[in-house]
Amino acid sequence: MSILVVGSVAFDSVETPFGRVDNVLGGSATYFSTSASFFTDVNLVAVVGDDFPQEHLDFLKSREIDLRGLARDSGKTFHWKGKYGYDLNEAQTLETHLNVFETFKPQIPPAYADSEYLFLANIDPELQMEVLRQVRKPKVIASDTMNFWISSKPDALREVIGRVDILIINEGEARQLTREPNLVKAARQILALGLKTLIIKRGEYGVLMFTDTSVFAAPAYPLEAVFDPTGAGDTFAGGFMGYLANTGDTSEEGVRQAIVFGSVMASFNVEAFSLDRMKTLAYREIEERYRDFKALTHFRGLPHQEGL
Amino acid sequence: MSILVVGSVAFDSVETPFGRVDNVLGGSATYFSTSASFFTDVNLVAVVGDDFPQEHLDFLKSREIDLRGLARDSGKTFHWKGKYGYDLNEAQTLETHLNVFETFKPQIPPAYADSEYLFLANIDPELQMEVLRQVRKPKVIASDTMNFWISSKPDALREVIGRVDILIINEGEARQLTREPNLVKAARQILALGLKTLIIKRGEYGVLMFTDTSVFAAPAYPLEAVFDPTGAGDTFAGGFMGYLANTGDTSEEGVRQAIVFGSVMASFNVEAFSLDRMKTLAYREIEERYRDFKALTHFRGLPHQEGL
Repeated sequence: MSILVVGSVAFDSVETPFGRVDNVLGGSATYFSTSASFFTDVNLVAVVGDDFPQEHLDFLKSREIDLRGLARDSGKTFHWKGKYGYDLNEAQTLETHLNVFETFKPQIPPAYADSEYLFLANIDPELQMEVLRQVRKPKVIASDTMNFWISSKPDALREVIGRVDILIINEGEARQLTREPNLVKAARQILALGLKTLIIKRGEYGVLMFTDTSVFAAPAYPLEAVFDPTGAGDTFAGGFMGYLANTGDTSEEGVRQAIVFGSVMASFNVEAFSLDRMKTLAYREIEERYRDFKALTHFRGLPHQEGL
Repeated sequence: MSILVVGSVAFDSVETPFGRVDNVLGGSATYFSTSASFFTDVNLVAVVGDDFPQEHLDFLKSREIDLRGLARDSGKTFHWKGKYGYDLNEAQTLETHLNVFETFKPQIPPAYADSEYLFLANIDPELQMEVLRQVRKPKVIASDTMNFWISSKPDALREVIGRVDILIINEGEARQLTREPNLVKAARQILALGLKTLIIKRGEYGVLMFTDTSVFAAPAYPLEAVFDPTGAGDTFAGGFMGYLANTGDTSEEGVRQAIVFGSVMASFNVEAFSLDRMKTLAYREIEERYRDFKALTHFRGLPHQEGL
């Protein structure tokens, strides 16, 4: 099954304690679709300016990402500039130039309207609603958001959350959305907005998944070299949705596996700046790291005769 | 097998967003031994003042903790006063009155000298060395420490670490000890001091275990009601060492199970102030929550025919 993703394609300038890069390929939809492309076909809806180089288009095409939904407007491509300290969990935004993204109105090409898997990356919740009006009846809809929309457009955001199956946000956003410091209580409140599944990202601490009847905890992979966490969340979402779309298995077991595949993809992406690690990644490595995750989290169940 | 623990028995005054308590039972050795007592026999070495009430002694005795090593000096019992904000991971110390603990010289009763499991709770590393000189040949020695000793007695602390099998410290302490922000690199450096196993506590994010050849990640149990994190680390260590001492299984599998039992015990302890939850806890509940941990972390391994 193919996935439709709507989000940003951008240039990023990023500084971490391990180096800096300027005007490299970034954007939520870029990370998402590249990651998902290891598992399934991806249809991308976004906008770039006339400064967007062929080299990046070639890369996305090499991942067999369908670019018919990638609009090109006159003007500059969205540019984000950020910085991380040794605490790589939190980016400090230095500059945001929306550029052509400022007037972005997602147009879903007719060929994409029957997509069964839809990911609404972090954009204005009113635009996310626009997208929902343009697609027919996706089997699974997931969305992301950010602190800015939680404070500036809370009503539109709640409307989106009520329409999607899966919300993928970070820990701070979950607390901000509910004004509830306890994460489990916050999760219950968010689920009550009408979600099937809530996935809470916790950076280097991994992910918690909540449904009405279960909780699943997946660690992040402990890495010796984390160069740049930019895009980790979208790369996670791409691996997660990509695996779901590939298998069509939306059972609890299937969703848990998809979360681990998402975590695997994110763990690779942070090993280098921009999407550089994705450029050399082989599927064999993805499966290897999935097995490493299994070994990382394995412990014996309780025998029936414990003798205690 | 019985465990010997050397640490503090104290009065705590604690304020959290959920309430406050004054002069309640606390102390590293108290939390450790109470938790371990659910799994094995515990011998306690610590000191209290002449203000220490019979009620607390009766509680420790009700847990069948051997108190022959609990000295009673004239003066006041160690008193810690602390406060937590909504971020329950970090305590703010308001007052520390060492009182009789200031001149504490651990004396290991002859009956304890053959203990096969030894836990050196967070005390002056020079006193931890004193204890090591008084015991014969423990099968497993574990120790804890804190930021204060890392900065004030780094050499003595490194000597202790070189003598123990297992170090149980928190994330910030691991980084402080090595001046290395990356936790995996920090862990490798600490292991190189001569440890078999390093356990890094991450509060509500769980625990990472490192050996020379493996890494294990255990989440913390997601709780709707965390009242007071005081003693969570020592309660973890008590469940961990208690289970190890009960089974005698120090294989990788055994240590992983012990880590989960430690996490189970900590998850109960934070549900109430002081040791109140331990007072009502039944072993049946411990096994139930162990099974809950298994369900919390379970995901399917990769089939050999993935079809991807």
